[in-house]
This record gives sequence, structure tokens and C-alpha cells, in this order.
Amino acid sequence: MPMPSPALSAVELARTDLHASLADPSLEAVNFLNEIIDRYPSAISFAPGAPHPGFFDTLDLDGYIDRYTAYLADQQHLTRAQVRRRLFQYGPSRGLIGELIAEALRIDTGIDVSARSIVVTVGCQEAMLLALRALSVGPGDMLAVVTPCYMGIVGAARLLGVPLVSIGEGEAGIDLAQLVQTCKEVRKAGRRVKAVYVAPDFANPSGSFMDRPSRTALLALAAQEDFLILEDSTYGFTAHDDHALPPLKKLDCHRRVVYLGTFSKVCLPGTRVGFVVADQPVHETPPRDRLLADEIAALKTMVTVNTSPICQAVIGGMLLANGGSLAALAKEKATFYRRNLEHLLNALDRRIGRHGGIDWNAPSGGFFVRVRLPAVVNDELVELSARRFGVLWMPMQHFYPEPVESRELRLSCSYLSPEQIEAGVERLAAFVNHVRYR
Amino acid sequence: MPMPSPALSAVELARTDLHASLADPSLEAVNFLNEIIDRYPSAISFAPGAPHPGFFDTLDLDGYIDRYTAYLADQQHLTRAQVRRRLFQYGPSRGLIGELIAEALRIDTGIDVSARSIVVTVGCQEAMLLALRALSVGPGDMLAVVTPCYMGIVGAARLLGVPLVSIGEGEAGIDLAQLVQTCKEVRKAGRRVKAVYVAPDFANPSGSFMDRPSRTALLALAAQEDFLILEDSTYGFTAHDDHALPPLKKLDCHRRVVYLGTFSKVCLPGTRVGFVVADQPVHETPPRDRLLADEIAALKTMVTVNTSPICQAVIGGMLLANGGSLAALAKEKATFYRRNLEHLLNALDRRIGRHGGIDWNAPSGGFFVRVRLPAVVNDELVELSARRFGVLWMPMQHFYPEPVESRELRLSCSYLSPEQIEAGVERLAAFVNHVRYR
Repeated sequence: MPMPSPALSAVELARTDLHASLADPSLEAVNFLNEIIDRYPSAISFAPGAPHPGFFDTLDLDGYIDRYTAYLADQQHLTRAQVRRRLFQYGPSRGLIGELIAEALRIDTGIDVSARSIVVTVGCQEAMLLALRALSVGPGDMLAVVTPCYMGIVGAARLLGVPLVSIGEGEAGIDLAQLVQTCKEVRKAGRRVKAVYVAPDFANPSGSFMDRPSRTALLALAAQEDFLILEDSTYGFTAHDDHALPPLKKLDCHRRVVYLGTFSKVCLPGTRVGFVVADQPVHETPPRDRLLADEIAALKTMVTVNTSPICQAVIGGMLLANGGSLAALAKEKATFYRRNLEHLLNALDRRIGRHGGIDWNAPSGGFFVRVRLPAVVNDELVELSARRFGVLWMPMQHFYPEPVESRELRLSCSYLSPEQIEAGVERLAAFVNHVRYR
Repeated sequence: MPMPSPALSAVELARTDLHASLADPSLEAVNFLNEIIDRYPSAISFAPGAPHPGFFDTLDLDGYIDRYTAYLADQQHLTRAQVRRRLFQYGPSRGLIGELIAEALRIDTGIDVSARSIVVTVGCQEAMLLALRALSVGPGDMLAVVTPCYMGIVGAARLLGVPLVSIGEGEAGIDLAQLVQTCKEVRKAGRRVKAVYVAPDFANPSGSFMDRPSRTALLALAAQEDFLILEDSTYGFTAHDDHALPPLKKLDCHRRVVYLGTFSKVCLPGTRVGFVVADQPVHETPPRDRLLADEIAALKTMVTVNTSPICQAVIGGMLLANGGSLAALAKEKATFYRRNLEHLLNALDRRIGRHGGIDWNAPSGGFFVRVRLPAVVNDELVELSARRFGVLWMPMQHFYPEPVESRELRLSCSYLSPEQIEAGVERLAAFVNHVRYR
């Protein structure tokens, strides 16, 4: 802050008065993109990764809350007044619906953990922040991220001042040779890779999918190089049964995996309910029966105190209304998103074609397709695409922790209808041809 | 983490693998106290500062959500589908109900700020964390706190690694001479006091109230010494109209005050809705029309993305149902809490008496009374009080950032009925006599 004038004029903050995480270019990128969306409202947008809004038209909020409160009355024998206090008063920082989440994980993913190892969080974002804070001790503790990378984890690391190191995706979702090399180099420099963040199932933004040998090898590497894995499971539900692979957490015999979950995609984002599974024992003298989840719950008291019990009641009710499993709900949505994705890939084939420096991947699930252009893809190009061609998307450069020149962009299929996707790809083809032949 | 054995056994974290904030004694204190509460369920507890549970028995959640959705339809002309998407989808990180909060602040406190300067947060705790993070830049930036102090702000500072410096309460809620001295010393050491956290109205835990000259002087000092003030307004609503003083933010001509608010006490904790007012301009080249609130909203994307729109709808509906003001609701609750407080103070006079090294303050509002005993008040003494005398309270030592020996304890009047208060003070008298005459 500049020194005040003798007249004690109003404060004016300078950029240097604000935390470094606020100078992160990714925040600028989000602002810029929102501004473009506002400026070109008739553009068809492949930018948002939000769930399809059509799913909300029949959602019965009261019904789910009633379902959960009936459960509290019937199963936990609470009186009507006790039920109301459970919902309206402060609650435990680890949350109320850990048992229900543990049960759903068992049924839906085969992950078998105790309710004690679960902390309910304000969306997956808080789960990331808390897990990262709990594990990052000294300035030498680094987080490795597979890039391009979901910016939520990068933002959490920046806010906490945790240094990042980037690992490439390679062919199978993570370049394990590079990860080994990085662990060694970092150790030589007197630092250590304390945790590795990965989204093995159709990662945002690349749509990449980690094959089974890589999953096994990553877990072995975690034990060998002594790091924990932060597994982001957001898009796992979109996998077709024939192609689904077990989450890292299910394969995790040595408790190397901290599992990050969200109800935003299968249920709804508006509750802001996510969770973290952290069943790692904490060793102390004298010994106490502590898990990493207990530590994360303690940290949560410093961030949000507890997750809204009303919001937990909505999610709890949805779990109960679906027999304790989200499989049926997830299947319905997965079918929708896979149809959208197939439609998008099909339209790209029909209308654009992989030639002249243009290519894209073809994920079998998730929300995202990664398109390569024969030119650097930056914010000016988005602006051009919106203004002249009426179509929006995300430049891939915004999904790297460090400034990069990327020739890629991200398309998301989740928010649009098949008709909008078709019309959007038609516009995208005109834009791509402009880039291809200019 | 210990190096893995050749057999790649399960990970076991050591205390040194976890962030320093998790070693904070205050976390232990909370655990210890919860454990005592569990162990002596029939003890009358003056420990919790939570709102009185009786207020929740008639609260109409659906009605408030309906009220807010009707407002979206009528005032903002949203269709039914748009309303549902507003509630169920992701939303802006600054929140949806800034306009309604700005209006309520104007009516209820005379604070006149734009909706743009407000960010809706997950309780007041997130507001503290975000404001502190935005303003703390280098390792030399310190937060001054008036002690004894609400542990939420201490926890947020610990989590972020922001160093703290303690200021005494003095006679009038803050020892201004000590604050000036501290600013000077800190500056001499090459650091700076970047912000000062205060709760001028019946602070938790001391119940202290800042008089008008101190409020004015603190604001002048903020300009002179170039710091911002984080004003925690939680208990301001409990002041009797005859004694109420304007919040610092209302007196703040130079935008030195960041105002932290909560709906937990007047409305309900279960929504986890709070807010921060940060109308400080951020100067940049080239100039952009930015406020500190814009920066805090950007930081929020890294912590919780956005506050649940469903929870915001409940609070928005409560505001609308009360004519855009919380005054009537606040008055009803203030009357209840003041009656409880008077009852508590009266019972202390009747049953204990200020002699033999025993004394207490007599706040005219808030939830808390500070009692001094002729002995060091620690966890062993709580345990004794619960076990032998059936009454619980909080040792004041837990409300200091650094370990202290305190002879004080905190009583809270919010959670109990007058009958419970009477019976509790009877038990407390037996305990106090034991301490006085042992």
C-alpha cells in the first residue's frame, strides 16, 4: 500500500499489495473468456464443462431432503426437533453423510473404505485444497501434475504457495519415465515430490484415459518414490461398462491414494458437495488411532467449518432414493454424455477431417475433446472464432501451470444438445478452414 | 514419510509429514473438549457459542426457497427452467444475493456499499480466509489480532502461514497504544502489520465492546500506519438500540475496513452463508475498474468455486420475507439472547459473588461472559468441573495464538434456556467455591 497522504485519502491497493496467486494468468484467462461469452451471446459455446442443464428440469429438491430426514428419523431414531437441528445447526466438520458415501463407493466402484476415512467437502475444489494443505509441509514439498491439467488443482497450489512440477501425458495418461526422472531430479535438488495429481478417467481438459498397466505402474512408483497420489475421479462415471477400468483407489493396496470425489456431475453442482477419501494412518507417539481424514477434517474447520447439512441432506436423499448407489443415475447421464461425445466426434470427422495439420483425439468417455490446429491457439484466436464464426471453445494454453505456446484447443460436449453440437461444428469447420488455408 | 520397505508396505504418515497448522494446540483443545462433552453428557454446558436450537423449530426452508425463486421469476423475469438452473447449476463465485445483502446492510446498519463490493462466502470462516489470503503477500506481512481472540481467524492465518502478532484488549476493546507500538516495532524489523482483525461488538470470547472514541481512533490509526481492518460483525445484532454503536465500516471514510458478515446467528448456521464487503479499489496500469471484492471472488474459485446457490436462496428468501431487512428477525433473537445474558449475570451475582479472586465482566450484549478465577484455568480444571460438578465451559487459554497461562474461562449463554442457566450457575458456584476455598 502506498503511504497515506497527509489528508488521509482513501486507500488504494496496488497489485503488489495482493497475493501472488491473484497474478496467475489463468485467472485473467477466465475473466477474458467470460467477457467474450458476454460479448458474443449468440456464439455456440464448446467452452463450459458444466453438466447439461436439461437434467435439472425434473429434479425434486424437497423430495430428496424429505428422503434424508425420513432416514434420520427411521434409521437413527431422531425426533422431529432433532432432525431439524441436524439440518439447521452447525455440524461436524467431517460431515454427516460419510456412511452413505462409503456405501455408494462400495457398490459403484468397489472401493471399500470406512466412513471414518471420508470428509464431506464444499465441492471437489475444497477437497483438493484440504488434501494439498495437509500434505505440503515445507517449501521443498512439490506437487506433480499431469499437464495439460485441471486448473482447480493449480489454483489451490498457488493459493497455498505449493510449488508445482509438470509431467507430460505421454501415450497412456501419464509419462511414467518422466515422473521417475522428475522425482530423482527434485530429490537431488533437496526437495521432494510429495504428491502427484492425476485424473485417470477422461481427464479435464485432454480427455486422456490411463490404461491398466499404467495404473498399476503408477501405484508401484508411488511406493518406490514415496509419494501420495491425489486421484480426481470426476469423469469416471462416463466410462462404458465394457471399457471401464478400476479407479487407482480400488487397486491401492498400500494406501497411497487420496481419492477426490464430486457429486456435481452425477447429481447437481448447486449443492457444492464433494468428498475426500483419506484412509492413510497417521503415526504418533503415544499412538492414537488417527487417519489423514481426521487431519483434513481439522483443517476444514479453518476453511469452511463444515459443509452445509442442508446440501448434504439433498445428496444423502439422492443416494437413499437410488438404493444407496448412484449407478442408475450415473448410467442415465453417462449414456447422454457419450451420445453427445460420439455426435461431436462424428461431426468433426464429417465436417473437418484430420488433415492439413488438424487432428484430435477420440476419447470413449468424459466431456472433452482435444483438437490440434496448425497455428498457435491463443486468446486472439478465440476472439476471432467468436466474432467471425460464432463459435467458442477453450485455448489449451490456459490448462498449463506455466505459460506455454500451444496449438491445441478444448471442446466440451456436456452443455449442448446434439443439434447445437452439429451447428457448432459447422461453424467450427469454417473457423478451422480459415486457420488451415489462411 | 519413511522410505518404503522392500515389501512396499502400507504408507504410514508421521506428524512431520503434515502441515504445521495441524500441530496447532487449539485443534487439540477442540478435540479434548468434544471428548469431555461426550464423556459427561449430563453436564450443563456453557461451552458452545452456537445459536439457540429452539429457533429452528418453526423455520420454513421450502417457504424461503420459494420466496427467492418467486423473486427471480417476478423481478428478474426468469422462466421456471432458468430459475431451476440458477439454483442447481454452478454460479458466479461472487454469489447471487449481493444486491439483497447490500440492501439489508443499508437498512440495518447504515453501511452503504454496492453489490459489486460483496462476495458471498461459505460462512464467515471462508470470508476470513479469503480476505487474509488476498492481503498477505510476503512472509513479512503480519496480521494483528486482539487477544483473547476468535480461533477461526487464527486458524485461517495458520493454514495460510501468515504470521500473527497479539494486541491486548485494554479497557475499550483494543489497546491502541500497544497497536501503535507494535506497528513501529514490526516496521523496524523490516516487516509490516498489513491488517488488524477486530470484533468491536461483544467479541468472542471476551464479550468486550469497543467504545466510540476507540472506533474513531482505530480508523485514524489505520490510515496513519497504513493497515486494513478486518471487522468481524458477528455479534453486533445483539446490541440494545440504546447502546448500539455504528460498525467501523459505517464510520470508514477511507475504505480501510473489510467487513466480515455471517447469517449463522440471525438466520441459521446450516446454510453456511456469510459474506465479505471489500470495496477497496485496486489500482492498475492500464487502469481497470477493479475492487478488492473482485480479487476475493477470484480467490474463491480456488477454495470452493462458489457458495451453494440453494443455500443462498434460503438466505435470500429470508431477507425478502422480512422486507429486505433482518432487523425484525435480529431484534427477536437479540431480545432472547440479552434475556439469557442478564439471567446469567444475575445468577452469577446471586450465587457466586465477586470476591476471593473471582470476578467477571458484564457485557450488555453478545453471547459471552469472561470469568476470572483465583487459579490457572486449564483442561484439567474443565475435566474436574465436568466430572465432579456437572458443568462445562471453555478455558480462555484456548483463545490465544500462543500458549498462555490464563486464570479465565468463557461462559456462553446462547445455547441454554434460562432454567438451564440457573441450574448451570448453581453447579458452577459449587465448582468455583471448590477452587476458591481449596
